[in-house]
Amino acid sequence: MPGPPPAPPAPELLARARLLVAPDVGEPVVRELERITGRAGERAPGNAPDGPYLHVGASLPEALRTGRLVWFHSVNAGTDALLDSGPWPPDALLTRTVGRMGERIAQYVLAWVLAECQSVSEFTAQHARAEWRRLPCEPVAGRTALIYGTGRIGSVVAGLLRGCGIRTVGVARTPRPVPPPGFDLVIGADAETEELGAARWVVAALPLTDATRGYFGARRFSAVRGASFVNVGRGATVDLAALGAALHAGTVRRAVLDVLPREPPAPDDGCWRLPRTVITSHSAGITADADVVADFGACWDELRAGRRPALAVDVSRGY
Amino acid sequence: MPGPPPAPPAPELLARARLLVAPDVGEPVVRELERITGRAGERAPGNAPDGPYLHVGASLPEALRTGRLVWFHSVNAGTDALLDSGPWPPDALLTRTVGRMGERIAQYVLAWVLAECQSVSEFTAQHARAEWRRLPCEPVAGRTALIYGTGRIGSVVAGLLRGCGIRTVGVARTPRPVPPPGFDLVIGADAETEELGAARWVVAALPLTDATRGYFGARRFSAVRGASFVNVGRGATVDLAALGAALHAGTVRRAVLDVLPREPPAPDDGCWRLPRTVITSHSAGITADADVVADFGACWDELRAGRRPALAVDVSRGY
Repeated sequence: MPGPPPAPPAPELLARARLLVAPDVGEPVVRELERITGRAGERAPGNAPDGPYLHVGASLPEALRTGRLVWFHSVNAGTDALLDSGPWPPDALLTRTVGRMGERIAQYVLAWVLAECQSVSEFTAQHARAEWRRLPCEPVAGRTALIYGTGRIGSVVAGLLRGCGIRTVGVARTPRPVPPPGFDLVIGADAETEELGAARWVVAALPLTDATRGYFGARRFSAVRGASFVNVGRGATVDLAALGAALHAGTVRRAVLDVLPREPPAPDDGCWRLPRTVITSHSAGITADADVVADFGACWDELRAGRRPALAVDVSRGY
Repeated sequence: MPGPPPAPPAPELLARARLLVAPDVGEPVVRELERITGRAGERAPGNAPDGPYLHVGASLPEALRTGRLVWFHSVNAGTDALLDSGPWPPDALLTRTVGRMGERIAQYVLAWVLAECQSVSEFTAQHARAEWRRLPCEPVAGRTALIYGTGRIGSVVAGLLRGCGIRTVGVARTPRPVPPPGFDLVIGADAETEELGAARWVVAALPLTDATRGYFGARRFSAVRGASFVNVGRGATVDLAALGAALHAGTVRRAVLDVLPREPPAPDDGCWRLPRTVITSHSAGITADADVVADFGACWDELRAGRRPALAVDVSRGY
């Protein structure tokens, strides 16, 4: 088991750290970061400064992975690529931008859940044929959504689904006697097979770590009994061959995939031929400039008060 | 102004009334009605019985519109066709089935609202072309839905939209100092033009009465500034020519119409050529047998207690 996360950087260290900003962060964001920190932003140089520095960006070049990095704020929510691309300086704090991502992803999930139940695509196709024919509208209340990921994003997804009367069941590695907001229930691995069989929807909102790579594979899909599968987490958490087999077998009803192991997929990629599937373009949870500024500012305020930010990533776990 | 609605039928009259059921009501429903009322159901005869009777069905033949009709329970929510097809016996109570219709209609509205914002149709079309391209996902929070109809159905629609952070404004003939559940605000005609201009969605959930026929016409549509229009009420409340002009002018962004003045529309009907419109097949708010039984039972209980049922229709107003 990993030990407790390191203490946050001391406010006095923060006070004299230089502010480095990655080249792909827009000028308006830099102006806001300067306003928040009260110092000039420097576009990340090729070599690390001699003294302490903080860094805002999407990625961190190897030359800047030194013991003098006090804090790195990621402009994205997912930090797997950042952590996979080199060893993380042990004392450097890593925080991330979530912004209104939970809300955005939740609306994406609910949109596709309701679109299926209300036959949105089928009605649109009928309309194009000037055809007026009754189609089923399936009420969602009382049906179960099994949601993998019970953190900030999974919790907002669950809350929105629950607002439509859907029973929301979370799956977590560690048991939760009191479910997080939005969940009716959080289960561990022991009850997973039963709930996979009962679910009308299986929603994947997992980060990518060593433990979640290929997590949705043949074993889990074979326990599904007619659920639709929605992935808003990371593409590589899904074994697409296993998903394809389950779709062909009919145990998985439909799939909506916002993320893929390889993006963008080539036009001849097999993913386009999965039956009853819609692939969207990693669009569910975009972050806007305003999100980066707001979340950086929230972390800044917590650090100045000597607290570990709520948006801090546990580097040893990867999320 | 119409006077107060008539008093509900006395329990002793109800106790000895015969139970007539229209031929198109299914046998399982008849069995349940018999169980609730404790008497045998009779398939509606050609002529009215000599004594008091109650009637369950969708329509009421002229021969049964007598002073001896104590109570008619409609298996539908809309009673416009029933009231338009002949004079209503002045002392006969009219009740209707709402069932889970509010919930069903609300999910229909939210499905189409979110489908538009999440580009569901566009992503589906891209997928068919094996095309991976970013499309806008528009968060709905903070935008305004203007909802016409603040009764049982409008209120449930508003509640579900509000759960996604949408500002819900109702429009009512009579001012409501305290908005009904689900609404942030209820306005009268004086503030309508301003709110039509500010709305992202205009949702029509009005009954059809003399006052609402052609209600959504050139004047209202010309005040819209980019809202999408959704009709889940009655088709004849909308002037389709005026809607078409507003769609062509671009003041109305999109339209989703579950109801039409004439249903079903012929394949060459002009409604199919409205731009940026999807017509669905009067499917949003179907009632199930279980709804008919539950709502009849609720009315029965209230009548036995000497109360006017909450599902009673004010015949002079038509809803």
